Amino acid sequence: MKIGILGTGVVGQTIAGKLASLGHEVTVGTRDPAATLKKTEKDGMGNAPFSEWHKSNSKVKLDTFANAAAGAEMVLVATNGMATLDAVKAAGKELDGKVLMDISNPLDFSKGMPPSLFVTNTDSLGEQVQKAAPNAKVVKTLNTVNAWLMVDPGKLQGGDHTMFVCGNDAAAKAKAVSFLKEAFGWKDIMDLGDLTNARATEGLVALWARIFVSTNQPMFAFKVVR
Amino acid sequence: MKIGILGTGVVGQTIAGKLASLGHEVTVGTRDPAATLKKTEKDGMGNAPFSEWHKSNSKVKLDTFANAAAGAEMVLVATNGMATLDAVKAAGKELDGKVLMDISNPLDFSKGMPPSLFVTNTDSLGEQVQKAAPNAKVVKTLNTVNAWLMVDPGKLQGGDHTMFVCGNDAAAKAKAVSFLKEAFGWKDIMDLGDLTNARATEGLVALWARIFVSTNQPMFAFKVVR
Repeated sequence: MKIGILGTGVVGQTIAGKLASLGHEVTVGTRDPAATLKKTEKDGMGNAPFSEWHKSNSKVKLDTFANAAAGAEMVLVATNGMATLDAVKAAGKELDGKVLMDISNPLDFSKGMPPSLFVTNTDSLGEQVQKAAPNAKVVKTLNTVNAWLMVDPGKLQGGDHTMFVCGNDAAAKAKAVSFLKEAFGWKDIMDLGDLTNARATEGLVALWARIFVSTNQPMFAFKVVR
Repeated sequence: MKIGILGTGVVGQTIAGKLASLGHEVTVGTRDPAATLKKTEKDGMGNAPFSEWHKSNSKVKLDTFANAAAGAEMVLVATNGMATLDAVKAAGKELDGKVLMDISNPLDFSKGMPPSLFVTNTDSLGEQVQKAAPNAKVVKTLNTVNAWLMVDPGKLQGGDHTMFVCGNDAAAKAKAVSFLKEAFGWKDIMDLGDLTNARATEGLVALWARIFVSTNQPMFAFKVVR
């Protein structure tokens, strides 16, 4: 399948690498591909820049946001939350009619760790993505675990934890759920309903960040025991 | 142990009944005891009024907020979130020096289900309780499950799910953790740190409410898989 991924950070890299390894045709989108390839410094968390990662993942293409979305059957938003709406707007009409999996979070690190949320409670970044791409079929998911668990939930307790999906288009959600199961091996996926539920799953990331701070390790996930 | 419980609703009733059954001396506090005993209608969720519940739980005393807290070794805030600060202020100096377990949530049902939160993200009801009772030792906990699971977590999957505590006083948290284990049987308790973490555990209740809406049953809980 042709898949576009918006965002060149560790989340975009991890998902792109996994999907390329499965034989998908992956293009990562960025604002300015030449500028992205020129960056040589690590990110704030010590992750390698895209240019370095790309050397061992050369099957993955790099292009503009719009070109990464063009021709793709499915597009994933893997940007830093602060950059999400600009990336989606830049992809523009290329997102029309497509399943758009938004996995970004509205994290505000301006006051350090743990972050607060720059949209929450009565609105969500997922809903803002849907407004910015009104003809895309937004599905909010994957945002509640780290990048390694997103693509390989079995790494933690055999995958015995829960992923949430929400969105306004039932067929798009069904496609996203199949994709999460087949590509990444997710077993327990809860469909919460429409996209307003992103308010709560994005809110969960505030708790994620605080557990990360208190335990000092990112390999954990939430299970809805029922 | 002498225990005061602020709030006469289903959460207050359930905790009071459980603690009385364990031999604790429990007084439930309310604004106006005579008015509470006069109420005969069920609450919005179909739960029995205190007066009816009290007939089969007559060991539990009913008194004012201040008198329920007076002489108690530990006080639990089990009010509707909208009533929490008034109850705490009414208990006033009787809370000084005591472990005050805040289990209430800042739920705003004014626009129906699912509720939003009337304080969140950069503040919490737990922190507001601490400001309203500056000499109490506030521990936020129990607010992320329903009342039956609060007092009997083993009812669900043998208790294989997680409870959070947070607060600014380490000794008070240790006392609360021992109490949760011994009185109710909690096994997996995570100490997240100071009381600002209530922002995230109260935020989790927004997700709780949405899972309740989508699954139409309240017997579930969150486990931090790690």
